[in-house]
Amino acid sequence: MIKIFNKIVPEFFVLDLDGVFTDGKFYYSQDGKNMKVFGADDHDCLNVLKGFMKIHVVTADLKGFEISKKRINLDMGLDIDLVDASSRVEWLAKNFDLAKTIYMGDGVFDHLVFREVFYSIAPANALKSTKNKASFVTKNSGGERAVAEACLHILGRFYPSQNHKLF
Amino acid sequence: MIKIFNKIVPEFFVLDLDGVFTDGKFYYSQDGKNMKVFGADDHDCLNVLKGFMKIHVVTADLKGFEISKKRINLDMGLDIDLVDASSRVEWLAKNFDLAKTIYMGDGVFDHLVFREVFYSIAPANALKSTKNKASFVTKNSGGERAVAEACLHILGRFYPSQNHKLF
Amino acid sequence: MIKIFNKIVPEFFVLDLDGVFTDGKFYYSQDGKNMKVFGADDHDCLNVLKGFMKIHVVTADLKGFEISKKRINLDMGLDIDLVDASSRVEWLAKNFDLAKTIYMGDGVFDHLVFREVFYSIAPANALKSTKNKASFVTKNSGGERAVAEACLHILGRFYPSQNHKLF
Amino acid sequence: MIKIFNKIVPEFFVLDLDGVFTDGKFYYSQDGKNMKVFGADDHDCLNVLKGFMKIHVVTADLKGFEISKKRINLDMGLDIDLVDASSRVEWLAKNFDLAKTIYMGDGVFDHLVFREVFYSIAPANALKSTKNKASFVTKNSGGERAVAEACLHILGRFYPSQNHKLF
Repeated sequence: MIKIFNKIVPEFFVLDLDGVFTDGKFYYSQDGKNMKVFGADDHDCLNVLKGFMKIHVVTADLKGFEISKKRINLDMGLDIDLVDASSRVEWLAKNFDLAKTIYMGDGVFDHLVFREVFYSIAPANALKSTKNKASFVTKNSGGERAVAEACLHILGRFYPSQNHKLF
Repeated sequence: MIKIFNKIVPEFFVLDLDGVFTDGKFYYSQDGKNMKVFGADDHDCLNVLKGFMKIHVVTADLKGFEISKKRINLDMGLDIDLVDASSRVEWLAKNFDLAKTIYMGDGVFDHLVFREVFYSIAPANALKSTKNKASFVTKNSGGERAVAEACLHILGRFYPSQNHKLF
Repeated sequence: MIKIFNKIVPEFFVLDLDGVFTDGKFYYSQDGKNMKVFGADDHDCLNVLKGFMKIHVVTADLKGFEISKKRINLDMGLDIDLVDASSRVEWLAKNFDLAKTIYMGDGVFDHLVFREVFYSIAPANALKSTKNKASFVTKNSGGERAVAEACLHILGRFYPSQNHKLF
Repeated sequence: MIKIFNKIVPEFFVLDLDGVFTDGKFYYSQDGKNMKVFGADDHDCLNVLKGFMKIHVVTADLKGFEISKKRINLDMGLDIDLVDASSRVEWLAKNFDLAKTIYMGDGVFDHLVFREVFYSIAPANALKSTKNKASFVTKNSGGERAVAEACLHILGRFYPSQNHKLF
């Protein structure tokens, strides 16, 4: 797939949850995972990007899914699905047009997704081996405005003719 | 508005809460936001600045407002109001003299406030696009003495003739 | 013991828990330790390394042992034992072949273990005096992919002939 | 007071709690402060230093005192007293010989204590104005081995003739 960025307009922005929206950490009490930590500006920037692309969130974390749904679905109003790391490429191909999909992930296996999509983004907190294979690496870490920075990057790179007065 | 710093004496210091007093993070359990994280020295430095300016705190976070009030109002003794990001300039204009107001904020839309006030401050953890538009950027991040540093900066810049023995 | 790396194939990877799998912090309420914070990618990378080495976790933290067991044993499926810092070398010698053991630890006394094993790893968050005595120091901190980075390092250094397609 | 380091042997090590033993952050729920975060190695290093100096902890935080006592007194076995920032010098003078006291603190007013004691230490997370006035500044932050580093520094500087085999 030849990627001529100024010809293709991406339509889908799919984001992994843990380590992208959050600091990637698992807060454990004796009863197991009890907390996730989300960050500022991500919600506001996705609200602007929503005018241009379909946003979708995926997570492989079954045990923390209730917490994830509370933030992503109930409080932010975004769709979220439980999708294993191992079946992620297949799932994405079935639900989206990969050639028009931007994917953001931080996991050690996410490069397997990166190579199949139009454009890939990794946050600063990912492993070096993951970041080396992403189209773009944010300066901010997950839970510390990585998603917000990714949104501004996407708007500037793929929708430059729009006048983004808000920023 | 021509800003001649050595002629104007600011009277109001209005601070956004999340990301300024806190690390800007939302700690989520299954039941939603359950915690905010505040930092050291901010309270002590605002207590000194209170002798020179009226201090006011604003927040757009409805769901975490009870936590915010507990810290800011009950424990620190400061006024706090719930004000949307979109109506913040209007609200500030109604309640304060913008030409004599210093505003500190970290949000992606706070530059819209920055351009209307006398002097603006962003903490280190704000997005680059926000920091680029602030009059002053603290070296410290929200929840890690950003407010304390802002207070010392204000005292040194706008009240240099005072002898701040305590610092 | 002369360590000819290309001759010896390590068989055991023993990891300290606090500060290696976690950020090394103790979250205290009035009732004592109530939380530990684990990180991303560590589980996934250990699952790959498990094909090559026996993995074992040790901890000296009695009060937080229930939390540790929940994450390490129940959720990650690894063996964990409570072993004092002072008796760690003796315990390791009894349970493993030290000459074929890689040990990862962050504590101020862990250098006493480092000098007895085949190869030692310290995370970025350890004290300088600890890191100075380790065979390898990860760039990542505990709870922030230090274990994942250590796994990739071990695979690359001691099992280079394997084709690690996943990374 | 002329400080000839190689002549005076300090006898007391007094440490502020928040921001020195902890990250200096206040974790708030709706019900107020509910958590403090302590770090690794501090306990182990103080246990070694205890052989040379009397250790004492002070805190100005009334609302979090139950949490502080749980960690410092019950779990670490150290004495802790509630002492206001404003009366700290006076309190120290009454309870210790200032000329033989090392004090470690991170607060904006702690320089007022620094100038009265034999030797002063600030952690990396203190404000610049505080660090500028300390005899020694640790590279580590509070809750991230600042106390451990301070202990090793004190042992090396004031007890060099001892053979600290453990480190």
